[in-house]
Amino acid sequence: MLNIGLLGCGRIGAVHAGSIARLDGARVSAVSDAVPAAAQALATKAGAQTLDPGELIASAEVDAVVIGTPTDTHYDLIHAAAKAGKAIFCEKPIDMSADRIRDCITAVEATSVPFMTAFNRRFDPNFAHLQARLAAGDIGEAEIITILSRDPSPPPVSYVKSSGGIFRDMMIHDLDMARFLLGEEPTHVFAVGSALVDPEIGAAGDADTAAVTLTTASGKICQISNSRRATYGYDQRIEVHGSHGMLRAANVQEHTVETATAIGFATAPAVHFFLERYEAAYLAEMAHFIAAVRDGTAPSPGITDGLRAQMLADAATQSWQTGQPVSVAGSA
Amino acid sequence: MLNIGLLGCGRIGAVHAGSIARLDGARVSAVSDAVPAAAQALATKAGAQTLDPGELIASAEVDAVVIGTPTDTHYDLIHAAAKAGKAIFCEKPIDMSADRIRDCITAVEATSVPFMTAFNRRFDPNFAHLQARLAAGDIGEAEIITILSRDPSPPPVSYVKSSGGIFRDMMIHDLDMARFLLGEEPTHVFAVGSALVDPEIGAAGDADTAAVTLTTASGKICQISNSRRATYGYDQRIEVHGSHGMLRAANVQEHTVETATAIGFATAPAVHFFLERYEAAYLAEMAHFIAAVRDGTAPSPGITDGLRAQMLADAATQSWQTGQPVSVAGSA
Amino acid sequence: MLNIGLLGCGRIGAVHAGSIARLDGARVSAVSDAVPAAAQALATKAGAQTLDPGELIASAEVDAVVIGTPTDTHYDLIHAAAKAGKAIFCEKPIDMSADRIRDCITAVEATSVPFMTAFNRRFDPNFAHLQARLAAGDIGEAEIITILSRDPSPPPVSYVKSSGGIFRDMMIHDLDMARFLLGEEPTHVFAVGSALVDPEIGAAGDADTAAVTLTTASGKICQISNSRRATYGYDQRIEVHGSHGMLRAANVQEHTVETATAIGFATAPAVHFFLERYEAAYLAEMAHFIAAVRDGTAPSPGITDGLRAQMLADAATQSWQTGQPVSVAGSA
Amino acid sequence: MLNIGLLGCGRIGAVHAGSIARLDGARVSAVSDAVPAAAQALATKAGAQTLDPGELIASAEVDAVVIGTPTDTHYDLIHAAAKAGKAIFCEKPIDMSADRIRDCITAVEATSVPFMTAFNRRFDPNFAHLQARLAAGDIGEAEIITILSRDPSPPPVSYVKSSGGIFRDMMIHDLDMARFLLGEEPTHVFAVGSALVDPEIGAAGDADTAAVTLTTASGKICQISNSRRATYGYDQRIEVHGSHGMLRAANVQEHTVETATAIGFATAPAVHFFLERYEAAYLAEMAHFIAAVRDGTAPSPGITDGLRAQMLADAATQSWQTGQPVSVAGSA
Repeated sequence: MLNIGLLGCGRIGAVHAGSIARLDGARVSAVSDAVPAAAQALATKAGAQTLDPGELIASAEVDAVVIGTPTDTHYDLIHAAAKAGKAIFCEKPIDMSADRIRDCITAVEATSVPFMTAFNRRFDPNFAHLQARLAAGDIGEAEIITILSRDPSPPPVSYVKSSGGIFRDMMIHDLDMARFLLGEEPTHVFAVGSALVDPEIGAAGDADTAAVTLTTASGKICQISNSRRATYGYDQRIEVHGSHGMLRAANVQEHTVETATAIGFATAPAVHFFLERYEAAYLAEMAHFIAAVRDGTAPSPGITDGLRAQMLADAATQSWQTGQPVSVAGSA
Repeated sequence: MLNIGLLGCGRIGAVHAGSIARLDGARVSAVSDAVPAAAQALATKAGAQTLDPGELIASAEVDAVVIGTPTDTHYDLIHAAAKAGKAIFCEKPIDMSADRIRDCITAVEATSVPFMTAFNRRFDPNFAHLQARLAAGDIGEAEIITILSRDPSPPPVSYVKSSGGIFRDMMIHDLDMARFLLGEEPTHVFAVGSALVDPEIGAAGDADTAAVTLTTASGKICQISNSRRATYGYDQRIEVHGSHGMLRAANVQEHTVETATAIGFATAPAVHFFLERYEAAYLAEMAHFIAAVRDGTAPSPGITDGLRAQMLADAATQSWQTGQPVSVAGSA
Repeated sequence: MLNIGLLGCGRIGAVHAGSIARLDGARVSAVSDAVPAAAQALATKAGAQTLDPGELIASAEVDAVVIGTPTDTHYDLIHAAAKAGKAIFCEKPIDMSADRIRDCITAVEATSVPFMTAFNRRFDPNFAHLQARLAAGDIGEAEIITILSRDPSPPPVSYVKSSGGIFRDMMIHDLDMARFLLGEEPTHVFAVGSALVDPEIGAAGDADTAAVTLTTASGKICQISNSRRATYGYDQRIEVHGSHGMLRAANVQEHTVETATAIGFATAPAVHFFLERYEAAYLAEMAHFIAAVRDGTAPSPGITDGLRAQMLADAATQSWQTGQPVSVAGSA
Repeated sequence: MLNIGLLGCGRIGAVHAGSIARLDGARVSAVSDAVPAAAQALATKAGAQTLDPGELIASAEVDAVVIGTPTDTHYDLIHAAAKAGKAIFCEKPIDMSADRIRDCITAVEATSVPFMTAFNRRFDPNFAHLQARLAAGDIGEAEIITILSRDPSPPPVSYVKSSGGIFRDMMIHDLDMARFLLGEEPTHVFAVGSALVDPEIGAAGDADTAAVTLTTASGKICQISNSRRATYGYDQRIEVHGSHGMLRAANVQEHTVETATAIGFATAPAVHFFLERYEAAYLAEMAHFIAAVRDGTAPSPGITDGLRAQMLADAATQSWQTGQPVSVAGSA
């Protein structure tokens, strides 16, 4: 039985606690949150104790920590947990600064603790199936990857101001997915962006509509587009054109009912809420982490994947701001 | 070059003339219609002469006749054309009476002229592909066939009164399709029907909503349902459940555009007009007839197929009227 | 907090225990099973006590019972639970005999305990959505209902021999669904059936391929077809043709990935396992039962729905055996 | 009756002759081709005379010319036809040089003859419907346009060497489509490309896999991707994400049959041959030209559209070669 300490009991912490409750071989044994009531609620449901973060990390009973606290606290918690020899599951982004992520890598490598970056979409059953088919060679080599990702509605401008911008807080998922599927590192990034959804987002110095082109050394191409708003639900699609065929993952719709009337045939919107859309992914990523720690294998995506995605998001931001393609070749 | 004489220049005659114009190896050389203007219009377009029916059938230049006149004239025209040794392409139904169709069979067999019954749906590229896949054994043996057929809107009650009823004028296409796909003759027919679309159709002694169950000696089952009205277009679907899988032919929609909005995803209605829905089928059935006559092979479906379908329509009508299953076993 | 006593800890009992664990407002407080290990396993997981059936029903702590024992035990358990004043959730079929179900109705009505018959498919989110749209009048009046239901693979012949036959153990779900959607009682049943999947099923006096036609007093028509085997998964589809349009619920597929190659476009099989296909339905039906007991409203489908479905299954069996339509008009 | 002179009787000339034959109000009265047999074949079928190009353009009987000759002959033919006052329908590209197209514009404007550039895809019923819905405001303002276009198989390297490259001979259709849908001119073009399909194409200095990003002054974004090879047919898809929803045009498949087996559900490949895929588009564009000339309205797309698309293709080629975004702002 793996005893997990939960650092952060907000919305995402509750999701991970729920996943752990449904999985064999692990339990939440301790929780921590700056808001005592949030910690207490999860503790009661899970039969766990509430501790402060330092106590939780120091606890002999805790085998692994799940970090779901605000991004600016990740750095210290990772350092502390690594020093304490705990396996670490950390929400993305690891940090807003690539250099600080490099420091975390140093800390994690120093004690060789297992580390997993929570890019949950890799565990979505549809995307995971697509990637497995691609890796199995079912469509030959990937040549053009198209990732279409639109949120149902934009976040408040206040969030945008501190999020690092659309490339770092939204497209980072797609940039990680691109790396997951390309099978080699992107070498060049070109980004464009506009504020078409909410002029206040533009006034705050960010875009809400954006597109990126990635290329690799072998000539593979990836096109990503994002919008902060889609009236028809949470639009999450991936398509890989390969030498022997094409794979694509369609949206998840609310139900399978089709209605036919004089205006034609109608089906349901895409599922709107990201927690519903990726419920199976959250469960599968936690199952992967628990199994990896139990079996002594390295969980994936690891800490370097977190760094690489951040570097791509930084490069996209720079490309958008300068209007020029940015090279990301070289070591991480 | 096959010289074809067109008997009947109404809507369906014009369709066949148009098909012949698009096909190599045949031309319309003579036309005939009770309405001189209709005959003249087609004659001008095709560069054909106008004749009366007797002259047309007697013409040494005419190799084959296409019969698209009212049903009650088919009997005499078939007898005359068979006697004159002309290949015959005849619209369905051959006749409203199975016994009179048997007379036609006798006449046709007497001179061994090629005869094709115009069950056009067998030549729809979608249904033809489905049948070919079934015949090739791709899903093993057919076990349950489901045919869903709905017209966009009901005919005038005046038409219903003389049409022979829904089983003979509408479902006969589906009964022929059932025979085409079952690979053996139905032995029992059970029919139900209601007037739900237009009470006047019920008052006229007919149904506008009907369903039939066919069974065969080997235990295959076919369910057919018809409605005289579908708000979403001309609904024409077929599904065959077999021992190794399932084949189904979906509707043909007006275009491929999908619209996504807050209420979900919407696609186009099914094509409404039967001449548009079956345009390719009309072309293909005429190509088949021309090729068969040219090559000296028997066109299919033949005259016996016309009789068999009529016998099933008669049995369905009787079953609906009596509430009892009807046996159709035995020779045609 | 509703305390539920679980009678029967087999596969379906475990499903219900799992549903209760995920729902607020109820818990499994006691379990019972003829196999002590099965009872103990569920008791440990749920923190419940193990009792014998009589003790469980008599327990003052138990508010409601979930009956998931073999069908022939339902009768006595229902009588005992009703006498003890417990709310009852009972797996289908309530009993193999319509007369014995009538006895159960008498017992249940004597003490007015809440009673729910577990026709889980009514709670499938897709079918429930379809029914809600139909009930809301979105396609006008239902005219033709088509229910296509095929199991992934046939049960062992030994099961068939004691199951009451395909109409009573498999099609009963579809017959209940027909009642759910028709909005009025079927008055006539006509059934056909064959043994095309497994000749041993035929030798045992049952069919494995079957079709039923239901009609109602107002002229609505329902066609149902069943097969005990579908190579492409658990095939569960419903379609309602109405005066203003059509509603249909498509299959649930394993994932949303489409693969395009030289042979065309391919998507995933239908989900195979009924527990996976109807996982959401099992959860929703239990939520409905818990809410109904809590709120003092009558759960639905009730005990009479269990009887009505059984009567239709009996009539279908008789029609299949005699080759004649069977009337089911009259009171339950 | 509009008398049309056909300049060029190759594959595309035959397509236009076939379209004219199916349309009312026009006929092919004269044809011309460097290969006498090609000219004679079309002349016989259409009942037209064969002339040399100068005679055809000078013929008093000819009202309009259809130019389907090799690209390097367009310039002189356009000048001659404009001088002779003939309406002009010209295949794309008008010329490989934007400056020479500007010369043609001067010549055409000098005599005000109607001029249509044959961007046939604007007349595809699916794309035309999508554009009409967009123009009608059904999804609000366009924000992100995604155009996915892949040919079934690459052309011979010899063709690539003289075609002007992938951006000028293949993507030009998509660049025109982008203009058709964006509703304003692109201002910046960024292109990437690789030779992944055929290394010989790369050795010849061209790409066979390419992607372009277009942006407009108001911030709209368009992503286009091309491949010279798709195993699953001629892949032609368009998607427009707008402020109120999304429109997308799916591929046209060979038939509507779906096959279900143990590996899942399979549908037909996309139609492979461009003449089959765009048959309806070729017919509709010619109908538009004939109607415009008859009604005295300006056909669209006009000659400036031909120039604008060529300028975008030039800019894309330059961007690909330099690795830098290229500005296309300013007058045509």
